[in-house]
Amino acid sequence: MRNVNQETLTQVFLDYCGPETSPRLRFLLEHLVNHLHDFVRETELTHAEWRKAIELLTKAGEITDDERNEFVLFSDVLGLSSLVDMINSKPGATSSSVLGPFHILGAPELKYGGDLKKDNDGATVIVQGQVSGSDGKPLSDAVIELWQTADNGLYSNQDEAQPEYNLRARLNVSDDGRYAVTTVRPAPYTVPDDGPVGELLNATGRHPWRPSHLHFIVSAPGYQTLVTEVFPSDDPYLDDDPVFGVREDLVMNYVEQSGSASVSDDFEAADRLTSPYFKVDFDFVLAVETSG
Amino acid sequence: MRNVNQETLTQVFLDYCGPETSPRLRFLLEHLVNHLHDFVRETELTHAEWRKAIELLTKAGEITDDERNEFVLFSDVLGLSSLVDMINSKPGATSSSVLGPFHILGAPELKYGGDLKKDNDGATVIVQGQVSGSDGKPLSDAVIELWQTADNGLYSNQDEAQPEYNLRARLNVSDDGRYAVTTVRPAPYTVPDDGPVGELLNATGRHPWRPSHLHFIVSAPGYQTLVTEVFPSDDPYLDDDPVFGVREDLVMNYVEQSGSASVSDDFEAADRLTSPYFKVDFDFVLAVETSG
Repeated sequence: MRNVNQETLTQVFLDYCGPETSPRLRFLLEHLVNHLHDFVRETELTHAEWRKAIELLTKAGEITDDERNEFVLFSDVLGLSSLVDMINSKPGATSSSVLGPFHILGAPELKYGGDLKKDNDGATVIVQGQVSGSDGKPLSDAVIELWQTADNGLYSNQDEAQPEYNLRARLNVSDDGRYAVTTVRPAPYTVPDDGPVGELLNATGRHPWRPSHLHFIVSAPGYQTLVTEVFPSDDPYLDDDPVFGVREDLVMNYVEQSGSASVSDDFEAADRLTSPYFKVDFDFVLAVETSG
Repeated sequence: MRNVNQETLTQVFLDYCGPETSPRLRFLLEHLVNHLHDFVRETELTHAEWRKAIELLTKAGEITDDERNEFVLFSDVLGLSSLVDMINSKPGATSSSVLGPFHILGAPELKYGGDLKKDNDGATVIVQGQVSGSDGKPLSDAVIELWQTADNGLYSNQDEAQPEYNLRARLNVSDDGRYAVTTVRPAPYTVPDDGPVGELLNATGRHPWRPSHLHFIVSAPGYQTLVTEVFPSDDPYLDDDPVFGVREDLVMNYVEQSGSASVSDDFEAADRLTSPYFKVDFDFVLAVETSG
Protein backbone atom coordinates (compact mmCIF):
# COMPACT_ATOMS: atom_id res chain seq x y z
CA MET A 1 0.00 0.00 0.00
CA ARG A 2 1.24 3.46 -0.78
CA ASN A 3 -0.36 5.05 2.26
CA VAL A 4 0.96 2.58 4.79
CA ASN A 5 1.71 4.15 8.17
CA GLN A 6 2.73 2.94 11.59
CA GLU A 7 -0.85 2.20 12.55
CA THR A 8 -1.74 0.26 9.38
CA LEU A 9 1.57 -1.50 8.68
CA THR A 10 0.82 -4.67 10.65
CA GLN A 11 -2.46 -5.25 8.83
CA VAL A 12 -0.86 -4.44 5.47
CA PHE A 13 1.73 -7.15 6.18
CA LEU A 14 -1.01 -9.67 6.95
CA ASP A 15 -2.96 -8.69 3.84
CA TYR A 16 0.15 -9.45 1.76
CA CYS A 17 0.03 -13.10 2.84
CA GLY A 18 -1.82 -14.87 0.05
CA PRO A 19 -4.12 -17.89 0.03
CA GLU A 20 -1.05 -20.14 -0.44
CA THR A 21 -0.10 -19.42 3.17
CA SER A 22 -0.78 -22.42 5.40
CA PRO A 23 -3.12 -21.63 8.32
CA ARG A 24 -0.41 -22.42 10.88
CA LEU A 25 2.17 -20.21 9.13
CA ARG A 26 -0.37 -17.39 8.90
CA PHE A 27 -1.12 -17.78 12.62
CA LEU A 28 2.58 -17.76 13.51
CA LEU A 29 3.33 -14.73 11.31
CA GLU A 30 0.34 -12.82 12.65
CA HIS A 31 1.52 -13.27 16.23
CA LEU A 32 5.20 -12.73 15.38
CA VAL A 33 4.64 -9.53 13.41
CA ASN A 34 2.16 -8.11 15.90
CA HIS A 35 4.70 -8.60 18.68
CA LEU A 36 7.69 -7.31 16.71
CA HIS A 37 5.81 -4.25 15.48
CA ASP A 38 4.47 -3.53 18.98
CA PHE A 39 8.02 -3.82 20.27
CA VAL A 40 9.25 -1.20 17.79
CA ARG A 41 6.31 1.11 18.46
CA GLU A 42 6.44 0.83 22.27
CA THR A 43 10.18 1.40 22.45
CA GLU A 44 10.31 3.98 19.64
CA LEU A 45 13.35 2.08 18.44
CA THR A 46 16.00 4.37 16.96
CA HIS A 47 17.92 3.76 13.76
CA ALA A 48 21.09 3.35 15.84
CA GLU A 49 19.43 0.63 17.94
CA TRP A 50 18.11 -1.08 14.81
CA ARG A 51 21.64 -1.04 13.35
CA LYS A 52 22.99 -2.52 16.60
CA ALA A 53 20.47 -5.36 16.38
CA ILE A 54 21.47 -6.04 12.76
CA GLU A 55 25.14 -5.97 13.81
CA LEU A 56 24.52 -8.52 16.59
CA LEU A 57 22.69 -10.84 14.19
CA THR A 58 25.40 -10.43 11.55
CA LYS A 59 28.11 -11.23 14.11
CA ALA A 60 26.08 -14.23 15.26
CA GLY A 61 26.07 -15.47 11.67
CA GLU A 62 29.82 -15.00 11.36
CA ILE A 63 30.64 -16.95 14.53
CA THR A 64 28.19 -19.79 13.82
CA ASP A 65 29.62 -23.00 12.40
CA ASP A 66 28.89 -26.73 12.51
CA GLU A 67 29.98 -26.94 16.14
CA ARG A 68 28.62 -23.69 17.53
CA ASN A 69 25.32 -22.00 16.77
CA GLU A 70 25.10 -18.50 18.21
CA PHE A 71 21.39 -18.22 17.29
CA VAL A 72 20.65 -21.23 19.51
CA LEU A 73 22.69 -19.54 22.23
CA PHE A 74 20.71 -16.30 21.84
CA SER A 75 17.53 -18.34 22.10
CA ASP A 76 18.95 -20.03 25.22
CA VAL A 77 19.99 -16.89 27.12
CA LEU A 78 16.75 -15.08 26.23
CA GLY A 79 14.83 -17.98 27.78
CA LEU A 80 13.18 -18.95 24.48
CA SER A 81 14.64 -22.46 24.27
CA SER A 82 13.55 -23.26 27.81
CA LEU A 83 10.11 -21.78 27.24
CA VAL A 84 9.62 -24.03 24.21
CA ASP A 85 10.74 -26.97 26.38
CA MET A 86 8.30 -26.03 29.15
CA ILE A 87 5.37 -25.57 26.81
CA ASN A 88 5.98 -28.93 25.21
CA SER A 89 6.60 -30.81 28.46
CA LYS A 90 3.87 -33.33 29.20
CA PRO A 91 2.08 -33.48 32.54
CA GLY A 92 3.05 -36.58 34.45
CA ALA A 93 6.36 -36.93 32.61
CA THR A 94 9.86 -35.84 33.59
CA SER A 95 10.51 -32.19 32.58
CA SER A 96 12.49 -31.66 29.42
CA SER A 97 15.46 -29.29 29.32
CA VAL A 98 17.80 -27.86 26.70
CA LEU A 99 19.58 -30.24 24.34
CA GLY A 100 22.58 -27.92 24.11
CA PRO A 101 25.14 -27.91 21.33
CA PHE A 102 27.38 -30.78 22.47
CA HIS A 103 25.34 -33.87 21.64
CA ILE A 104 26.86 -36.06 18.95
CA LEU A 105 25.59 -39.25 17.38
CA GLY A 106 27.36 -42.60 17.47
CA ALA A 107 28.31 -43.02 21.13
CA PRO A 108 29.06 -46.66 22.05
CA GLU A 109 26.61 -48.93 23.88
CA LEU A 110 27.18 -49.62 27.55
CA LYS A 111 25.59 -52.52 29.42
CA TYR A 112 23.76 -52.21 32.74
CA GLY A 113 26.32 -51.34 35.42
CA GLY A 114 28.99 -50.38 32.90
CA ASP A 115 31.75 -47.89 33.62
CA LEU A 116 32.15 -44.53 31.88
CA LYS A 117 34.67 -43.04 34.29
CA LYS A 118 37.65 -45.14 33.22
CA ASP A 119 40.74 -42.96 33.59
CA ASN A 120 38.91 -39.64 33.97
CA ASP A 121 39.86 -37.45 36.92
CA GLY A 122 37.22 -36.43 39.44
CA ALA A 123 34.85 -37.96 41.96
CA THR A 124 33.20 -41.25 41.02
CA VAL A 125 29.42 -41.25 40.87
CA ILE A 126 27.03 -44.15 40.60
CA VAL A 127 23.99 -42.95 38.65
CA GLN A 128 21.02 -45.29 38.63
CA GLY A 129 17.27 -45.34 38.38
CA GLN A 130 14.34 -46.62 36.41
CA VAL A 131 12.65 -45.61 33.17
CA SER A 132 8.88 -45.90 33.17
CA GLY A 133 5.95 -44.56 31.18
CA SER A 134 3.42 -42.03 32.41
CA ASP A 135 1.08 -45.03 32.36
CA GLY A 136 3.17 -46.58 35.15
CA LYS A 137 4.78 -49.35 33.06
CA PRO A 138 8.53 -50.01 33.45
CA LEU A 139 10.09 -49.66 30.00
CA SER A 140 12.44 -52.55 29.36
CA ASP A 141 13.11 -51.42 25.76
CA ALA A 142 14.16 -47.88 26.68
CA VAL A 143 17.48 -46.54 25.46
CA ILE A 144 19.26 -43.78 27.37
CA GLU A 145 21.84 -41.53 25.76
CA LEU A 146 24.09 -39.93 28.37
CA TRP A 147 26.75 -37.28 27.74
CA GLN A 148 28.57 -34.94 30.09
CA THR A 149 31.68 -32.85 30.70
CA ALA A 150 34.91 -34.19 32.09
CA ASP A 151 36.28 -32.80 35.35
CA ASN A 152 37.77 -29.82 33.45
CA GLY A 153 34.30 -28.65 32.30
CA LEU A 154 34.88 -29.67 28.68
CA TYR A 155 33.01 -32.14 26.47
CA SER A 156 35.03 -34.65 24.45
CA ASN A 157 34.35 -32.73 21.23
CA GLN A 158 35.79 -29.55 22.77
CA ASP A 159 38.96 -31.09 24.12
CA GLU A 160 41.56 -32.85 22.02
CA ALA A 161 43.09 -34.43 25.11
CA GLN A 162 39.97 -36.58 25.62
CA PRO A 163 39.46 -39.86 23.72
CA GLU A 164 36.66 -39.86 21.14
CA TYR A 165 33.27 -40.46 22.82
CA ASN A 166 34.79 -39.91 26.28
CA LEU A 167 31.93 -39.76 28.84
CA ARG A 168 29.29 -40.55 26.21
CA ALA A 169 27.26 -43.75 25.97
CA ARG A 170 24.02 -45.38 24.95
CA LEU A 171 22.91 -47.14 28.10
CA ASN A 172 20.91 -50.35 27.94
CA VAL A 173 18.30 -50.94 30.64
CA SER A 174 17.42 -54.11 32.53
CA ASP A 175 14.23 -56.14 32.14
CA ASP A 176 12.45 -53.86 34.60
CA GLY A 177 13.65 -50.65 32.91
CA ARG A 178 16.46 -49.98 35.37
CA TYR A 179 19.76 -48.37 34.40
CA ALA A 180 23.01 -48.08 36.32
CA VAL A 181 26.38 -46.61 35.35
CA THR A 182 29.53 -45.41 37.08
CA THR A 183 30.86 -42.12 35.83
CA VAL A 184 32.64 -38.99 36.95
CA ARG A 185 31.02 -36.00 38.55
CA PRO A 186 30.44 -33.36 35.81
CA ALA A 187 31.78 -29.82 36.26
CA PRO A 188 30.23 -26.38 35.78
CA TYR A 189 31.30 -24.57 32.62
CA THR A 190 30.63 -21.33 30.80
CA VAL A 191 28.51 -20.88 27.69
CA PRO A 192 30.66 -19.37 24.90
CA ASP A 193 30.95 -15.69 25.80
CA ASP A 194 33.38 -14.40 23.16
CA GLY A 195 30.62 -13.51 20.65
CA PRO A 196 27.52 -11.29 20.55
CA VAL A 197 25.76 -13.35 23.24
CA GLY A 198 28.74 -12.67 25.49
CA GLU A 199 28.31 -8.98 24.70
CA LEU A 200 24.69 -9.17 25.86
CA LEU A 201 25.57 -11.08 29.03
CA ASN A 202 28.30 -8.58 29.80
CA ALA A 203 26.05 -5.55 29.22
CA THR A 204 23.51 -6.95 31.68
CA GLY A 205 26.01 -8.10 34.31
CA ARG A 206 25.15 -11.77 33.79
CA HIS A 207 27.80 -14.47 34.29
CA PRO A 208 28.13 -17.26 31.72
CA TRP A 209 28.42 -20.20 34.18
CA ARG A 210 26.03 -23.09 33.76
CA PRO A 211 25.45 -25.41 36.73
CA SER A 212 27.05 -28.82 36.20
CA HIS A 213 24.71 -31.42 34.71
CA LEU A 214 24.33 -34.77 33.04
CA HIS A 215 22.58 -34.70 29.63
CA PHE A 216 20.07 -37.41 28.78
CA ILE A 217 17.96 -38.37 25.80
CA VAL A 218 15.60 -41.17 26.83
CA SER A 219 13.48 -42.96 24.24
CA ALA A 220 11.23 -46.01 24.08
CA PRO A 221 8.75 -47.24 21.45
CA GLY A 222 5.26 -45.85 22.06
CA TYR A 223 6.50 -43.01 24.28
CA GLN A 224 7.62 -39.46 23.62
CA THR A 225 11.37 -39.02 23.53
CA LEU A 226 12.62 -37.02 26.49
CA VAL A 227 15.53 -34.58 26.09
CA THR A 228 16.66 -33.39 29.50
CA GLU A 229 19.46 -32.53 31.92
CA VAL A 230 19.88 -33.45 35.56
CA PHE A 231 21.61 -31.19 38.08
CA PRO A 232 23.26 -31.82 41.46
CA SER A 233 21.46 -30.13 44.36
CA ASP A 234 24.66 -28.55 45.71
CA ASP A 235 25.81 -26.78 42.53
CA PRO A 236 26.63 -23.08 43.15
CA TYR A 237 25.01 -21.97 39.86
CA LEU A 238 21.72 -23.82 40.31
CA ASP A 239 19.73 -20.64 40.92
CA ASP A 240 21.10 -18.55 38.06
CA ASP A 241 21.59 -20.84 35.08
CA PRO A 242 22.08 -18.44 32.14
CA VAL A 243 20.00 -20.69 29.86
CA PHE A 244 17.13 -21.31 32.33
CA GLY A 245 17.52 -25.09 32.13
CA VAL A 246 16.95 -26.02 35.78
CA ARG A 247 13.56 -27.43 36.88
CA GLU A 248 12.78 -28.53 40.40
CA ASP A 249 12.20 -32.15 39.33
CA LEU A 250 15.59 -32.24 37.56
CA VAL A 251 17.62 -31.57 40.71
CA MET A 252 19.08 -34.70 42.26
CA ASN A 253 21.09 -35.42 45.38
CA TYR A 254 24.66 -36.65 45.20
CA VAL A 255 24.74 -38.87 48.29
CA GLU A 256 28.24 -39.49 49.56
CA GLN A 257 28.99 -43.17 50.26
CA SER A 258 31.45 -44.28 52.87
CA GLY A 259 32.41 -47.71 51.60
CA SER A 260 32.16 -50.17 48.75
CA ALA A 261 30.38 -52.90 50.73
CA SER A 262 27.03 -52.01 49.27
CA VAL A 263 28.11 -52.01 45.62
CA SER A 264 26.68 -54.89 43.69
CA ASP A 265 28.77 -57.06 41.42
CA ASP A 266 26.61 -55.75 38.59
CA PHE A 267 28.95 -52.77 38.45
CA GLU A 268 31.88 -53.22 36.13
CA ALA A 269 33.90 -50.83 38.30
CA ALA A 270 32.80 -52.39 41.65
CA ASP A 271 36.29 -53.42 42.68
CA ARG A 272 37.80 -50.05 41.77
CA LEU A 273 35.41 -47.88 43.83
CA THR A 274 37.23 -46.12 46.61
CA SER A 275 35.75 -43.87 49.29
CA PRO A 276 34.40 -41.33 49.02
CA TYR A 277 32.17 -41.83 46.05
CA PHE A 278 28.66 -40.59 45.35
CA LYS A 279 25.41 -42.27 44.55
CA VAL A 280 22.61 -40.61 42.62
CA ASP A 281 19.13 -42.02 42.08
CA PHE A 282 17.12 -40.53 39.26
CA ASP A 283 14.06 -42.03 37.58
CA PHE A 284 12.74 -40.99 34.17
CA VAL A 285 9.06 -40.91 33.26
CA LEU A 286 8.20 -40.74 29.54
CA ALA A 287 4.83 -39.45 28.28
CA VAL A 288 2.69 -41.91 26.35
CA GLU A 289 2.87 -41.07 22.63
CA THR A 290 -0.42 -39.62 21.42
CA SER A 291 -1.29 -39.83 17.75
CA GLY A 292 -1.73 -36.64 15.74
CA MET B 1 15.87 -20.01 39.64
CA ARG B 2 15.40 -23.72 39.98
CA ASN B 3 11.63 -23.52 40.01
CA VAL B 4 11.29 -21.36 36.92
CA ASN B 5 8.17 -22.13 34.91
CA GLN B 6 6.42 -20.67 31.89
CA GLU B 7 4.59 -18.11 34.01
CA THR B 8 7.66 -16.91 35.95
CA LEU B 9 10.33 -17.15 33.21
CA THR B 10 9.96 -13.59 31.90
CA GLN B 11 10.39 -12.06 35.35
CA VAL B 12 13.31 -14.38 36.13
CA PHE B 13 15.02 -13.12 32.97
CA LEU B 14 14.50 -9.50 34.04
CA ASP B 15 15.74 -10.25 37.57
CA TYR B 16 18.97 -11.63 36.03
CA CYS B 17 19.77 -8.19 34.54
CA GLY B 18 22.05 -6.57 37.07
CA PRO B 19 22.61 -2.94 38.11
CA GLU B 20 25.23 -2.60 35.32
CA THR B 21 22.40 -2.69 32.79
CA SER B 22 21.75 0.76 31.31
CA PRO B 23 18.17 1.96 31.79
CA ARG B 24 17.56 2.02 28.03
CA LEU B 25 18.92 -1.52 27.52
CA ARG B 26 16.80 -2.76 30.41
CA PHE B 27 13.73 -1.10 28.88
CA LEU B 28 14.46 -2.61 25.43
CA LEU B 29 15.09 -6.10 26.86
CA GLU B 30 11.99 -5.95 29.02
CA HIS B 31 9.81 -5.19 26.00
CA LEU B 32 11.66 -7.58 23.69
CA VAL B 33 11.52 -10.53 26.07
CA ASN B 34 7.92 -9.92 27.05
CA HIS B 35 6.92 -9.96 23.38
CA LEU B 36 9.06 -12.96 22.42
CA HIS B 37 7.89 -14.98 25.41
CA ASP B 38 4.25 -14.05 24.75
CA PHE B 39 4.76 -15.12 21.13
CA VAL B 40 5.99 -18.56 22.22
CA ARG B 41 3.22 -18.96 24.80
CA GLU B 42 0.38 -17.78 22.54
CA THR B 43 1.43 -19.95 19.62
CA GLU B 44 2.52 -22.94 21.76
CA LEU B 45 5.53 -23.06 19.49
CA THR B 46 6.68 -26.61 18.79
CA HIS B 47 10.25 -27.83 18.87
CA ALA B 48 10.05 -28.40 15.09
CA GLU B 49 8.98 -24.77 14.54
CA TRP B 50 11.75 -23.53 16.84
CA ARG B 51 14.28 -25.60 14.87
CA LYS B 52 12.91 -24.12 11.61
CA ALA B 53 13.41 -20.60 12.98
CA ILE B 54 17.00 -21.45 13.99
CA GLU B 55 17.56 -22.95 10.52
CA LEU B 56 16.30 -19.76 8.81
CA LEU B 57 18.57 -17.57 10.95
CA THR B 58 21.54 -19.89 10.36
CA LYS B 59 20.94 -19.81 6.59
CA ALA B 60 20.63 -16.02 6.77
CA GLY B 61 24.05 -15.93 8.41
CA GLU B 62 25.53 -18.16 5.74
CA ILE B 63 24.25 -16.05 2.82
CA THR B 64 25.17 -12.71 4.40
CA ASP B 65 28.37 -11.04 3.18
CA ASP B 66 29.74 -7.54 2.69
CA GLU B 67 27.37 -6.89 -0.21
CA ARG B 68 24.22 -8.62 1.01
CA ASN B 69 22.77 -8.70 4.48
CA GLU B 70 19.90 -11.18 4.81
CA PHE B 71 19.06 -9.93 8.33
CA VAL B 72 18.40 -6.46 6.90
CA LEU B 73 16.25 -8.12 4.25
CA PHE B 74 14.28 -10.05 6.90
CA SER B 75 13.78 -6.76 8.73
CA ASP B 76 12.65 -5.19 5.45
CA VAL B 77 10.07 -7.82 4.42
CA LEU B 78 8.67 -8.07 7.96
CA GLY B 79 8.04 -4.32 7.87
CA LEU B 80 10.45 -3.60 10.73
CA SER B 81 12.83 -1.37 8.75
CA SER B 82 9.96 0.75 7.46
CA LEU B 83 8.38 0.94 10.90
CA VAL B 84 11.65 2.28 12.35
CA ASP B 85 11.72 4.80 9.49
CA MET B 86 8.13 5.88 10.16
CA ILE B 87 8.63 6.23 13.91
CA ASN B 88 11.71 8.37 13.39
CA SER B 89 10.23 10.52 10.62
CA LYS B 90 9.75 14.12 11.70
CA PRO B 91 6.46 15.95 11.29
CA GLY B 92 6.73 18.63 8.63
CA ALA B 93 9.65 16.89 6.90
CA THR B 94 9.74 14.60 3.87
CA SER B 95 9.11 10.96 4.88
CA SER B 96 12.15 8.77 5.19
CA SER B 97 12.32 5.37 3.51
CA VAL B 98 14.65 2.37 3.45
CA LEU B 99 18.32 2.93 2.70
CA GLY B 100 18.59 -0.45 1.03
CA PRO B 101 21.82 -2.40 0.54
CA PHE B 102 23.13 -0.72 -2.64
CA HIS B 103 24.41 2.62 -1.37
CA ILE B 104 28.17 3.08 -1.72
CA LEU B 105 30.38 5.96 -0.70
CA GLY B 106 32.54 8.00 -3.06
CA ALA B 107 30.18 8.88 -5.91
CA PRO B 108 31.43 11.85 -7.97
CA GLU B 109 30.06 15.38 -7.64
CA LEU B 110 27.67 16.68 -10.28
CA LYS B 111 26.89 20.33 -10.82
CA TYR B 112 23.37 21.79 -11.08
CA GLY B 113 21.83 20.57 -14.35
CA GLY B 114 24.46 17.85 -14.84
CA ASP B 115 23.82 14.64 -16.77
CA LEU B 116 23.84 11.16 -15.22
CA LYS B 117 22.19 9.34 -18.15
CA LYS B 118 25.16 9.47 -20.50
CA ASP B 119 25.08 6.27 -22.56
CA ASN B 120 22.56 4.43 -20.43
CA ASP B 121 19.56 2.89 -22.20
CA GLY B 122 16.03 3.92 -21.22
CA ALA B 123 13.81 6.99 -21.11
CA THR B 124 15.42 10.30 -20.18
CA VAL B 125 14.06 12.00 -17.06
CA ILE B 126 14.68 15.48 -15.79
CA VAL B 127 14.50 15.38 -12.01
CA GLN B 128 14.43 18.72 -10.27
CA GLY B 129 13.19 20.47 -7.17
CA GLN B 130 14.20 22.38 -4.10
CA VAL B 131 15.66 21.49 -0.73
CA SER B 132 14.33 23.48 2.17
CA GLY B 133 14.13 23.19 5.93
CA SER B 134 11.01 22.55 7.98
CA ASP B 135 11.52 26.16 9.07
CA GLY B 136 10.82 27.22 5.45
CA LYS B 137 14.39 28.26 4.58
CA PRO B 138 15.85 27.17 1.22
CA LEU B 139 19.05 25.25 1.94
CA SER B 140 21.83 26.45 -0.36
CA ASP B 141 24.43 24.26 1.37
CA ALA B 142 22.45 21.03 0.96
CA VAL B 143 24.12 18.00 -0.62
CA ILE B 144 22.04 15.33 -2.33
CA GLU B 145 23.29 11.81 -2.90
CA LEU B 146 21.38 10.09 -5.69
CA TRP B 147 21.69 6.44 -6.73
CA GLN B 148 19.45 4.23 -8.83
CA THR B 149 19.21 1.19 -11.09
CA ALA B 150 19.97 1.18 -14.78
CA ASP B 151 17.27 0.21 -17.25
CA ASN B 152 18.01 -3.49 -16.60
CA GLY B 153 17.02 -3.16 -12.93
CA LEU B 154 20.60 -3.50 -11.67
CA TYR B 155 22.76 -1.14 -9.65
CA SER B 156 26.32 -0.48 -10.81
CA ASN B 157 27.75 -2.62 -8.01
CA GLN B 158 25.61 -5.58 -9.12
CA ASP B 159 26.48 -5.40 -12.82
CA GLU B 160 29.99 -5.69 -14.22
CA ALA B 161 28.84 -4.22 -17.55
CA GLN B 162 28.21 -0.83 -15.91
CA PRO B 163 31.02 1.70 -15.34
CA GLU B 164 32.01 2.32 -11.71
CA TYR B 165 29.62 4.84 -10.09
CA ASN B 166 27.20 4.58 -13.03
CA LEU B 167 23.98 6.44 -12.12
CA ARG B 168 25.39 7.65 -8.81
CA ALA B 169 26.25 11.23 -7.91
CA ARG B 170 26.56 13.85 -5.20
CA LEU B 171 24.42 16.71 -6.52
CA ASN B 172 25.25 20.30 -5.71
CA VAL B 173 22.36 22.70 -5.27
CA SER B 174 21.95 26.29 -6.45
CA ASP B 175 21.96 29.38 -4.23
CA ASP B 176 18.25 28.93 -3.57
CA GLY B 177 18.57 25.22 -2.73
CA ARG B 178 17.42 23.98 -6.13
CA TYR B 179 18.74 20.82 -7.78
CA ALA B 180 18.34 19.56 -11.34
CA VAL B 181 19.74 16.50 -13.10
CA THR B 182 19.05 14.47 -16.22
CA THR B 183 19.05 10.75 -15.71
CA VAL B 184 17.42 7.54 -16.90
CA ARG B 185 14.12 6.19 -15.66
CA PRO B 186 14.89 3.52 -13.01
CA ALA B 187 13.43 0.03 -13.39
CA PRO B 188 11.61 -2.30 -10.95
CA TYR B 189 13.71 -5.16 -9.61
CA THR B 190 13.39 -8.05 -7.21
CA VAL B 191 14.81 -8.26 -3.74
CA PRO B 192 17.18 -11.27 -3.50
CA ASP B 193 14.87 -14.29 -3.24
CA ASP B 194 17.31 -17.20 -3.38
CA GLY B 195 17.80 -17.33 0.41
CA PRO B 196 15.65 -17.77 3.51
CA VAL B 197 13.77 -14.50 2.89
CA GLY B 198 12.82 -15.87 -0.53
CA GLU B 199 11.58 -19.00 1.23
CA LEU B 200 9.33 -16.86 3.43
CA LEU B 201 8.04 -14.80 0.49
CA ASN B 202 7.33 -18.00 -1.43
CA ALA B 203 5.50 -19.66 1.47
CA THR B 204 3.20 -16.65 1.76
CA GLY B 205 2.61 -16.14 -1.97
CA ARG B 206 4.42 -12.81 -1.98
CA HIS B 207 6.32 -11.62 -5.06
CA PRO B 208 9.80 -10.09 -4.65
CA TRP B 209 9.31 -7.09 -7.02
CA ARG B 210 10.04 -3.65 -5.65
CA PRO B 211 8.53 -0.65 -7.43
CA SER B 212 11.15 1.37 -9.31
CA HIS B 213 12.63 4.26 -7.36
CA LEU B 214 15.36 6.82 -7.01
CA HIS B 215 17.36 6.70 -3.77
CA PHE B 216 18.29 9.93 -2.03
CA ILE B 217 20.29 10.97 1.01
CA VAL B 218 19.82 14.69 1.57
CA SER B 219 21.88 16.51 4.18
CA ALA B 220 22.52 20.10 5.24
CA PRO B 221 24.22 21.59 8.30
CA GLY B 222 21.74 22.18 11.13
CA TYR B 223 19.13 19.80 9.70
CA GLN B 224 18.45 16.09 10.12
CA THR B 225 19.82 13.99 7.31
CA LEU B 226 17.02 12.47 5.23
CA VAL B 227 17.34 8.95 3.79
CA THR B 228 14.53 8.29 1.37
CA GLU B 229 13.31 6.90 -1.95
CA VAL B 230 11.00 8.45 -4.52
CA PHE B 231 8.62 6.38 -6.67
CA PRO B 232 6.86 7.03 -10.00
CA SER B 233 3.07 7.19 -9.69
CA ASP B 234 2.52 4.69 -12.53
CA ASP B 235 4.69 1.86 -11.26
CA PRO B 236 2.83 -1.49 -11.25
CA TYR B 237 4.28 -2.54 -7.87
CA LEU B 238 3.49 0.67 -6.01
CA ASP B 239 0.75 -0.92 -3.91
CA ASP B 240 2.61 -4.06 -2.89
CA ASP B 241 6.21 -3.14 -2.26
CA PRO B 242 7.64 -6.16 -0.40
CA VAL B 243 9.68 -3.90 1.89
CA PHE B 244 6.88 -1.38 2.67
CA GLY B 245 8.94 1.58 1.46
CA VAL B 246 6.22 3.59 -0.32
CA ARG B 247 4.69 6.62 1.40
CA GLU B 248 2.09 8.85 -0.20
CA ASP B 249 4.39 11.90 -0.14
CA LEU B 250 7.17 9.93 -1.87
CA VAL B 251 5.14 9.25 -5.03
CA MET B 252 5.93 11.63 -7.88
CA ASN B 253 4.55 12.10 -11.35
CA TYR B 254 6.65 11.45 -14.43
CA VAL B 255 5.22 14.08 -16.77
CA GLU B 256 5.86 13.31 -20.42
CA GLN B 257 7.30 16.25 -22.38
CA SER B 258 6.69 16.69 -26.09
CA GLY B 259 9.67 18.82 -27.08
CA SER B 260 12.94 20.28 -25.95
CA ALA B 261 11.89 23.92 -26.29
CA SER B 262 11.35 24.35 -22.60
CA VAL B 263 14.70 22.93 -21.52
CA SER B 264 16.98 25.53 -20.08
CA ASP B 265 20.59 25.81 -21.14
CA ASP B 266 21.41 24.98 -17.53
CA PHE B 267 21.07 21.34 -18.49
CA GLU B 268 24.29 19.76 -19.67
CA ALA B 269 22.26 17.36 -21.83
CA ALA B 270 19.89 20.02 -23.20
CA ASP B 271 20.88 19.53 -26.83
CA ARG B 272 20.64 15.73 -26.60
CA LEU B 273 17.08 15.55 -25.24
CA THR B 274 14.77 13.88 -27.72
CA SER B 275 11.01 13.41 -27.40
CA PRO B 276 9.54 11.86 -25.47
CA TYR B 277 11.28 12.53 -22.24
CA PHE B 278 9.90 12.94 -18.74
CA LYS B 279 10.04 15.66 -16.17
CA VAL B 280 9.72 15.07 -12.44
CA ASP B 281 9.43 17.74 -9.78
CA PHE B 282 10.22 16.68 -6.26
CA ASP B 283 11.03 18.92 -3.30
CA PHE B 284 12.78 17.78 -0.12
CA VAL B 285 12.01 19.18 3.33
CA LEU B 286 14.55 18.48 6.08
CA ALA B 287 13.66 18.62 9.78
CA VAL B 288 15.50 21.18 11.88
CA GLU B 289 18.13 19.40 14.01
CA THR B 290 17.16 19.41 17.65
CA SER B 291 19.84 19.03 20.27
CA GLY B 292 19.77 16.03 22.60
